Amino acid sequence: MTRFMDIHRGMQGITAEQLQQGHDAAAAGEREEGVHFEHAWADPETGTVYCLSEGPSPEAVRRAHERGGADAPDEIHAVPLMV
Amino acid sequence: MTRFMDIHRGMQGITAEQLQQGHDAAAAGEREEGVHFEHAWADPETGTVYCLSEGPSPEAVRRAHERGGADAPDEIHAVPLMV
Repeated sequence: MTRFMDIHRGMQGITAEQLQQGHDAAAAGEREEGVHFEHAWADPETGTVYCLSEGPSPEAVRRAHERGGADAPDEIHAVPLMV
Repeated sequence: MTRFMDIHRGMQGITAEQLQQGHDAAAAGEREEGVHFEHAWADPETGTVYCLSEGPSPEAVRRAHERGGADAPDEIHAVPLMV
């Protein structure tokens, strides 16, 4: 399992409720893909959402988003180092 | 207090030890600026480091990095929403 940070852009004006809905949607695809979404943070002003997850591959993280009906992220980066 | 995500680029090849050193350096500037660094994640391949902090302003987050001798981040975004 690898930790990933993925980034969604163009989400200007996102609300707390929409962030929660997106998180719940992505989480609905977790089991099939072996992905766990840990946290997400959003900046409504620049429209950027950051999702932290663990999973087997970036493709699995992308598919977990899509299975649940969440938008696919614009970037997915492995972040194997953490403090 | 606001939560911030800041991004450092150009850190290709960063090691776990260097990430820890950077975190410790930034943390050394915490008290003067009222900033707390919660976590940092690094992608050595693309050279991207993500730092999650709480503080009074983006300027304070920047100064906290610099006071401790850490590189200033390339971007600092408030992330007032979190799940």
